Formats: sequence, structure tokens, C-alpha cells
Amino acid sequence: LTERQLLMIPGPTPVPPSVLLSGARPMVNHRGPEMAKLMADCTAGLKRVFQTQHDAFILTCSGTGGLEAAVVNTLSPGEKALSVSIGVFGDRLATIAKTYGAEVESLSYPYGAAADPKQIQERLAADTGKEIKAVLITQNETSTGVCNDLATIGPMVREHGARLIVDGISSLLAMDSQMDNWGMDVVVAGSQKAFMIPPGLCFVAVNDRAKEAMERCTTPRFYLDLRKAKQYLEQGQTPWTPAVPLIWQLGDALKLIEAEGLQNSFARHARLAAMTRAGAKALGLTLFAADESRASNAVTSIRRPEGIATADLRKLMRDKYAVVISGGQGKIKDDIFRIGHLGFVGEKEILAALGCLGLALKEMGQAVDPAAGVAAAMAVVGG
Amino acid sequence: LTERQLLMIPGPTPVPPSVLLSGARPMVNHRGPEMAKLMADCTAGLKRVFQTQHDAFILTCSGTGGLEAAVVNTLSPGEKALSVSIGVFGDRLATIAKTYGAEVESLSYPYGAAADPKQIQERLAADTGKEIKAVLITQNETSTGVCNDLATIGPMVREHGARLIVDGISSLLAMDSQMDNWGMDVVVAGSQKAFMIPPGLCFVAVNDRAKEAMERCTTPRFYLDLRKAKQYLEQGQTPWTPAVPLIWQLGDALKLIEAEGLQNSFARHARLAAMTRAGAKALGLTLFAADESRASNAVTSIRRPEGIATADLRKLMRDKYAVVISGGQGKIKDDIFRIGHLGFVGEKEILAALGCLGLALKEMGQAVDPAAGVAAAMAVVGG
Repeated sequence: LTERQLLMIPGPTPVPPSVLLSGARPMVNHRGPEMAKLMADCTAGLKRVFQTQHDAFILTCSGTGGLEAAVVNTLSPGEKALSVSIGVFGDRLATIAKTYGAEVESLSYPYGAAADPKQIQERLAADTGKEIKAVLITQNETSTGVCNDLATIGPMVREHGARLIVDGISSLLAMDSQMDNWGMDVVVAGSQKAFMIPPGLCFVAVNDRAKEAMERCTTPRFYLDLRKAKQYLEQGQTPWTPAVPLIWQLGDALKLIEAEGLQNSFARHARLAAMTRAGAKALGLTLFAADESRASNAVTSIRRPEGIATADLRKLMRDKYAVVISGGQGKIKDDIFRIGHLGFVGEKEILAALGCLGLALKEMGQAVDPAAGVAAAMAVVGG
Repeated sequence: LTERQLLMIPGPTPVPPSVLLSGARPMVNHRGPEMAKLMADCTAGLKRVFQTQHDAFILTCSGTGGLEAAVVNTLSPGEKALSVSIGVFGDRLATIAKTYGAEVESLSYPYGAAADPKQIQERLAADTGKEIKAVLITQNETSTGVCNDLATIGPMVREHGARLIVDGISSLLAMDSQMDNWGMDVVVAGSQKAFMIPPGLCFVAVNDRAKEAMERCTTPRFYLDLRKAKQYLEQGQTPWTPAVPLIWQLGDALKLIEAEGLQNSFARHARLAAMTRAGAKALGLTLFAADESRASNAVTSIRRPEGIATADLRKLMRDKYAVVISGGQGKIKDDIFRIGHLGFVGEKEILAALGCLGLALKEMGQAVDPAAGVAAAMAVVGG
């Protein structure tokens, strides 16, 4: 029964029932007074989440549309960008930049590793001619479950002077992300992650450096033109008809988010991730993150045990236990499985997922104490 | 009270309560089996609505994103396009084509008029070198309430050989639109119009001629790349995380649409439009459409009466009677008001809107029998 499923994938994530229902209101005029008030409230709330004093825009598109908006508004054909990639989504951002004519230099790391800030600093220091105009990086690489240290990398890029374009699609709210303090110029986030609302919106925050680049940028753009978004937001509108129900849902989700508080949200995600990692290890599994200190607080990637196909494990978990987890993506598609723990999720869901994972592994012939995962996770939180 | 509003604008349109609630289901994996079944069902339903045997894709974006998809996938920089525009949305399609480097020749008509098929035929006949690669046209021009005769224009363009790219955003289901029979190569529709679902999705149908152009097209594109949409649809997926609740809503709305039947839907919209026009005229108002036989079945544009500001009329209708109507757009913003009558709407809503319009006009000092509009509309349907 689909409705009984426990959705433990790194997005879309479960939506709180009250937020689900807030999308079911009667339709309104998207250029009327109700929307103007809602847009103003949502924008103010988003700025607090992005930890920025600058601008935040709501776009009707998937996260990938937001990445495209970041590129086509601030990077001109022929400009050089340094892509720092640690997985599928870092690669995607680089591909988008190449598609629109940027000259992209790649600094890529093996899947499972985080970017080395020292190497980034060395590369930027060597760029004495300031040819690198932008650095492209993912804060939380959803495909591998590894995150980059933007508190360290951000200031390095700012010192060099390049613009820092950050894919924060799955990181915002699941981990600290201080746009202004850390020197990020463009940050993209997605609705269907820790914001606890359905997919269909993305949020793009830009500071004054990025806005200055927007004005100069020669890349053609129309639907995703942030200059138009800025102009219409001043009247509490979007340039094109937005996904109205999702904006209602954003408004209500932001109230839940503010009630919890950013620091509590980061701490909760850290706690749930620690529980998941401890549980996986206690079940004899190996984490995919090369360095556990850089393992994601939004999603945990786990190597499939020898003799078990990822697809079979996922199918058993789904069909027998109604727990939905993800496989890998890209070249590691079949090598790992992933447990998402971001957004509307707490200790009980982690325990449920680890318990069913233990049962499934035993059923698939692994020599494992199926309760060991749950017990280890409980120990993390004082059990 | 916003919830009591009667929304009579040309989109977003009211959503049936059962469809509203079908978006409030618990979230699912967008790459799981539930979505694959739903995507297949929705795609089949959309093809029936587009009256095409070819491909239809669901994109997560506003209608303008769909227009951009039509352009960037089939029109290459430097290719010549003939823009036939009768209003704001025709102009927008031309602007998008210019933005992405097409050489656009404009055949523009005064706002309120429809395009003259004979002039289009003459222009195409003069293009003996077949330099015109595409014709861009709006079926229903939402900004003026006038529609173009695509049953006549379509075959003319096909005979010339140019591709016909049609903005059908507000026309599909509100009027006949035979993609295959009339020779349309790309047709774009929006969710928030006669499909009766919220904004956030658009639908783009392409035939083999358009697909061949897609393969050759050199315009850079990523988020809106229909080649990727096609590739993923074969697995029942979208390339990027879609607005899942809107696709559930589409699935349920398509059931309502199929239960009514296309011909009944066209007839209902024609009937409601005739009621609205008759009612407006009986209230002493002047239709904006230069030729009533080309007035839209989706939205009726009415000149503001002398001495009344459009904004004041709209405000009184909204604040006192909870009836929401639209003003004009672009250069005729303050000259007209518009009553939308597409999607989830019937005779009773037309009568209610015309009755409140009569009351408002009288209150604003017009010498008018306030009940005359309702009576005239009733006479249209045998009252």
C-alpha cells in the first residue's frame, strides 16, 4: 500500500500532513493581494534560511532549473569557471556551464571523497591573472552522501575574487550554510528536500556581486531570467504564473521551520545521520563516504554487501516492509544504496528503517544480528 | 474572505475539490513504480487532448517555460521565423525566439484583431526560397480574448513546409485544436487553464517533423531539453524531479476531462462564452474583439465603460461581491477588463459573475439595468 510507505530517499521527502493540505486551498489570482502578502512572507523566511541579507527568488522549476538559473544569469559564454565536483550533481553543474558556453576547468574527486580545500586554494593562488571568474561547487553531494567544507572553501574563493556558485539543493536546513558569512554569491535550494514541501519550486539567492554579474551577463535567458524575477518581486509577484499551491505550502512549512529554529534543525539532522551511520556499521555494512567526518547529514550512502544486489535489497525493503530507500546514481548506481534522512523525519523513522534493513539483510542471507542496527542507533541518542 | 471568491480570470482557474485533494497525497519516489504508471496514463490522456498520435511531454514550469522549450528545442540561432502576433503572448513568443538568436520577422495585428490567414498565405507564398523555417502563433490570445483560425492557417503553413509552433496554453480543451489534422508541429499547453489543475506544469507535444528539428537544433538547452524528456519518458520518468502532486492532479483531472469528452468541453466553453458576450452587450458594454466570430471561448475581453477605471471596477467586484476578474495586459492594461470562463466553470458561474457585474456598474454610476446581463445570458441557453 503506497500510502503506508516510509519514504527514506534524499528527495522528494515526506511532507507534513498540514503542509500537504495547505496546497489544497481554492485557487487565487497569482497577481492578487493574497499572493503579494504570501510572496513577501516567503521571501523573508527564505532569506533567514539562506542566512543572507541579500535577495532570494522563488522559481517554478526543479532544482536543476535552479542550477541552470544560477549559470545563465551570472556566467557569460567564454568566461572561465572552476568546477569542483565530487559526484553526479557536481558534474551536472559543470555540464550546464559548458552547455551555455563557459570554459570549464574540472577539479574532480573520486566519488565518496570530499573536495580538498587546500587543492582549491592552490589552484586559485596559481590563477594570478584572475582568469577564473566563478567556482562551481555542491555543498551536499546527494549522489554520494558527502559534503564539502564550504565554511573553509567559501572564504578562499572570496579572497581570490571569483564568484562562488553553490548547489545547496539538498543541504539547506540539513546542515549549516551561511551564505553571507562564508562568502557564497549564488546559492540554489530545492523545495523537495529539507524544506518539507513537494518538488516543483526552487529557490535562488544572489548577493550584490552576483547581481552585478547578472547585469553584465551575456548568456541568453528568458524563463529563468533573475532580472525579471527581481523586478516582479518588488510588486510581490513572479514574472510567470507560479505554482501557487507550492508557495502556500512553502509559507506553512517556513512556519514549522522557524518554530524549530535553524540550529535545532541542523542538530536534528546531524543526530539522525549519526544514528544512521552507527546503525549501518553495526549491521556490518560499510559507509561509502571515504572520511566519515565529511559524511552528509542529509543522506547516508552505504556500500551494498557482497552477494546482494542493490535493486533486490530495495525491492524487498519496499515490497515487504514499505520502506523506500534509494540506489546509487551515475557510475556507482549499483554499488551503493542510500538512506535519506532530511526534512520531516525524526528518530522513530531512523529506527524503523534500520530495523527493516536488518530484517531484510538477514532474509537475504547475510550473517547479521538484525537488531544490531537499531540498538547502535539508539545508543547514539542515549539508549 | 478569499475562500469564497469566484475566480473568473483566464488562469489560474478554479480547481475541482477532488482534484485539489488529489495533490495532498503522501509523497512518493518520483522514480518509483507508482509514478511510472501515472506518467504513462497522463501521457496517453494528454495525447488524446492534443489530438495527436505523436509525443507529449510534461514539464515542471510555467507556460512561458513551455514556450521557451518549444523555441530552444526546434529553432536554431540564425534560422528565420515568422511571428504572427495578435497580443502580449504572441509578442512574448517572438521575444523568446529573438532572445535565443532566431531571425524573427513580425506579422503583427492590432490588439483585438485576429490574424488574417490570407496575409499569412501570401507571405509564405512569397518565400520561394523557403527561408522561413518556422511560424510562431498563438491559438488563443489570452491578453485580448481573440483566437486565430488554426484550422485554416495550419494547412497553409504545412503546405509551405515551415514548422508550425503553436502557443495553445489557454486554448486546449476550451476550443478545438487538432494538432495532427491541422498540421501543427509543436503545441504548448498550460496546467492552470482548462485542464483544471493548478499552475506549475506545462505540456509540450511534438510531432516527427519537430523531433527531427530537435535533433538538428543547435540552441543550447539543458533543463528544458526535450530530447532528455523523451529519453526519460520511455522509463516512465522525467529527467529532473517533477512537481509530483501536480501530476497526480493531472491524472485525476484527465479522468474528469475524459468523462465530459472533448466535443462536450468545446461546446460548453462556446456556450459560456456566448452567454458572457451576450450579457456584456446587454449591460451596454462593448466587446474588445474586433470580429465577434473570432472572440475567444476561453476569456471575454470587454472595453471599460467611459468614466470607469478598470482597477476600480475590479476592486469593487472583488471586495464587495467576491468575484475576481482580470484587467488588461501590456499596452491595453487599463483599457479593458477580462472575464475568464475556462476549465471548472458552468452556466451558474457566468450568471453569478454577470449579475455582480451589473450591480457594480450601477453602483459606479452607469445608467444600466443591472439584471439585463443575466437575462441576456439566460436567453442564450433557452431562458
